[in-house]
Amino acid sequence: MGRVTDRRRVVRIALPAAGGAGRQVRPDTLVAEEPLEIRVGPAGAPRPPLAVTMRTPGEDLDLAIGFLVTEGIVGSAADVVAAQLCAGTDQLNTYNVVEVTLDPELPPPATDPTRNFYTTSSCGVCGKASIDAVRTRSRFGVAGDPVRVPAATLAGLPDRLRAAQRVFDRTGGLHAAGLFTAGGELVVLREDVGRHNAVDKVVGWAARQQRLPLRGQLLLVSGRASFELAQKAWMAGIPVLAAVSAPSTLAVSLAEEAGMTLVGFLRGDTMNVYAGAERVT
Amino acid sequence: MGRVTDRRRVVRIALPAAGGAGRQVRPDTLVAEEPLEIRVGPAGAPRPPLAVTMRTPGEDLDLAIGFLVTEGIVGSAADVVAAQLCAGTDQLNTYNVVEVTLDPELPPPATDPTRNFYTTSSCGVCGKASIDAVRTRSRFGVAGDPVRVPAATLAGLPDRLRAAQRVFDRTGGLHAAGLFTAGGELVVLREDVGRHNAVDKVVGWAARQQRLPLRGQLLLVSGRASFELAQKAWMAGIPVLAAVSAPSTLAVSLAEEAGMTLVGFLRGDTMNVYAGAERVT
Repeated sequence: MGRVTDRRRVVRIALPAAGGAGRQVRPDTLVAEEPLEIRVGPAGAPRPPLAVTMRTPGEDLDLAIGFLVTEGIVGSAADVVAAQLCAGTDQLNTYNVVEVTLDPELPPPATDPTRNFYTTSSCGVCGKASIDAVRTRSRFGVAGDPVRVPAATLAGLPDRLRAAQRVFDRTGGLHAAGLFTAGGELVVLREDVGRHNAVDKVVGWAARQQRLPLRGQLLLVSGRASFELAQKAWMAGIPVLAAVSAPSTLAVSLAEEAGMTLVGFLRGDTMNVYAGAERVT
Repeated sequence: MGRVTDRRRVVRIALPAAGGAGRQVRPDTLVAEEPLEIRVGPAGAPRPPLAVTMRTPGEDLDLAIGFLVTEGIVGSAADVVAAQLCAGTDQLNTYNVVEVTLDPELPPPATDPTRNFYTTSSCGVCGKASIDAVRTRSRFGVAGDPVRVPAATLAGLPDRLRAAQRVFDRTGGLHAAGLFTAGGELVVLREDVGRHNAVDKVVGWAARQQRLPLRGQLLLVSGRASFELAQKAWMAGIPVLAAVSAPSTLAVSLAEEAGMTLVGFLRGDTMNVYAGAERVT
């Protein structure tokens, strides 16, 4: 059974300038990282590996189903007939494979390495094509979501996320993703060594609770807002994505195209709104 | 031609508690993010897409070749017959595909999504299998590297990295990877919206300069040390990996198995050495 953290022996070095004790051997708590293989197929047929993600063990079924939702392979938990952790062949290696059995009516997922992107037959992958690919696959529109959020509510979210996270994170190595109501109440928090996994765990949890699309709700991520995270928010129907750090150009472009609100540098009492500023009151 | 940054219009909101000016529309500099498709094949044959990575444009040939090195597909620049940026079919979409022509003697790369991992026929992917897979593919041993680094030299690296990075990064959105000599001199710095890309750009630069393996040298990354980054360092023959933030359990395990030195929380005058402490003097 995977653990979220593990203890390791570490040599702590403090230079004289730090007033330190020189060299000291002591235990340190680290964030656990293990591969998770996600296998997907219909009932009664082989379920070949679709992806391997390096993740922090825990909430693995949520992670697998969230991944399938944000990749556009399933639209909701109703498309999933069964999902289970595989029992490993030796005690140490248990629980690193999730097998997902899909509704046989669903088209099988593409395993091409470029499956996330529309590519022309000649050279042509670009940001616009990437956004078009997400648009094609997203089942949920977010542009018409009428939610409004006071700036003061947004400003309070990072503290709430950290307060909830502090209980778990003694490692400094965990990314967090938190789903909030428009009133600023935390709905669910997930953490992972990979920021995309933290978001997939939130989306998978919501899918299994039959809460998709996540209309009127806010997703806060502890780090930066990349294209990939904006894509995952869109795929889950989340109208407002906020990040403690910087967004990228393509995350902003995607948010504009989707009609999503994107907030960055949400720190203390200031924030930058990169798209959909009308939702921030 | 890709740009490292781009300007966007942003609504800056400051709450009264911040003594701010309310709402202000102003330009903001963002880190550019665009997909890069890497196509690989021998001369005279099709070069199918192997991977798409979301990256900050620039140093794209270094990125592609570094990716091929750290994935174990090529061992050095000698395995690469040619590498070129594709010209796109429209002006906006140029330069997002790199085509790499391999030595026809090389085995073609596997495009299976689990190519990085040894997986048994039943359930069995695990951290140990991941490490074994890297060991199998790495051409360079790092365990015997006799390099020694004073702790005081290590302590000075983050400031040097930031000083060099400050020139470029006005966005807050760039990860940095810096290659240093054992004496603490910066050899090369690369930045990217993706931390793995920053390391691949360093490794690809070194490969194209015929500097592999990077014996006796240090790699510093601006964020956390994941399994993936430790894997890339090992694949390039780098004996010392240092990170400003936390390592994961599997990064530490890989460093131990490889005989690599792994330093984390390298901040101010203190640091934690998680593996290979004998190299830190």
